[in-house]
Amino acid sequence: MKLYYAPGTCAVGVWIAMAWADADVSAVRVDYSDPAYKKINPLGLVPAVDIGGARPMTELAAILDYLSERYADKDLGADDSIEDRFLYNETKSFLSSDFHPAFGAVFGPSRFTMATDDEAVEKVKKAGYIKVDGVMTHLNDHIIGDNEHIYKNKKTFLDAVAYVMVRWSRFTPKSWEQYPNIQRFMAMMDADESVQKIIQESEKE
Amino acid sequence: MKLYYAPGTCAVGVWIAMAWADADVSAVRVDYSDPAYKKINPLGLVPAVDIGGARPMTELAAILDYLSERYADKDLGADDSIEDRFLYNETKSFLSSDFHPAFGAVFGPSRFTMATDDEAVEKVKKAGYIKVDGVMTHLNDHIIGDNEHIYKNKKTFLDAVAYVMVRWSRFTPKSWEQYPNIQRFMAMMDADESVQKIIQESEKE
Repeated sequence: MKLYYAPGTCAVGVWIAMAWADADVSAVRVDYSDPAYKKINPLGLVPAVDIGGARPMTELAAILDYLSERYADKDLGADDSIEDRFLYNETKSFLSSDFHPAFGAVFGPSRFTMATDDEAVEKVKKAGYIKVDGVMTHLNDHIIGDNEHIYKNKKTFLDAVAYVMVRWSRFTPKSWEQYPNIQRFMAMMDADESVQKIIQESEKE
Repeated sequence: MKLYYAPGTCAVGVWIAMAWADADVSAVRVDYSDPAYKKINPLGLVPAVDIGGARPMTELAAILDYLSERYADKDLGADDSIEDRFLYNETKSFLSSDFHPAFGAVFGPSRFTMATDDEAVEKVKKAGYIKVDGVMTHLNDHIIGDNEHIYKNKKTFLDAVAYVMVRWSRFTPKSWEQYPNIQRFMAMMDADESVQKIIQESEKE
């Protein structure tokens, strides 16, 4: 399968997830601001994955579900009860629907106001910092006890995408080192060989 | 099961979905801006559902998955192949991770800037209109041919939540009537008895 990614984006988390699943993946670096990329994903977003269908498929949460089903033997998704799946899906949806969008105004503040002066744009970015602290605090509270994982205390695909998104907090005044449970999770992930390898590879020109 | 909702929110779409599934539901109207509600959902968001576990469960997309699994006999979720589930999940994730957040600046522009003057807040709201037109256009393109549904041409839970969220576009300069495929979908939904009943009931004081 082919994965369209850009450095630093949540698509790199998908790449890590695919590596954990031993998926046969060829990763293609794209410039998602290039209008040509809209032929791949009309929303101009990564990740997109080509699984051999009529068009590449999109949406972080949907791609993770596909990996869980296709590589079910790796057991990197939810545990097997309806309540366990609900918990996994709740966390997955929090990451894609709340956590990820919270960073929008930090990375693209000018898209959140018609004002063009630096001061107005900076005020949008600062409001974004408050949103990010809100979702980081929620994630920190979500990692309970001495857990080192995002879902229960089990290695899952959610770790891979959470890791990449949490790293974005270093572009805010309160980086992930200041959230103790997240810090523990990040230390575990930093030591993972696939994580190290793919972060490095994804940042190559 | 107990559903926490507020009028006009996507939680009303969940209520419609539950009605279609013939679920035994008691709907509880809440003021999600009330700090007391944070005991139900620390993120201060609806929907939340109490399914008898240790705490109410949250996240629109996860609740829809739970309904699909628990009421599988109603066939209101994805068709049964891995590719069909991918398509369903892609659309579900688009609705919860892209479509829904696009309206954030329309309904709460002051949360997107540290500026407090009316002019600055209005400029944030106007930038929100552009985002909303982007996701409405994508949804319109997604409903192909003469289809009247959001997923293929099949009645699913996605119709219920898309309906409620599309209605939000009437608070922007370009309402859903101006997107022909969405308009066709909305006409179908407006004629649905459960939809009519629950919209009315959800708006009662």
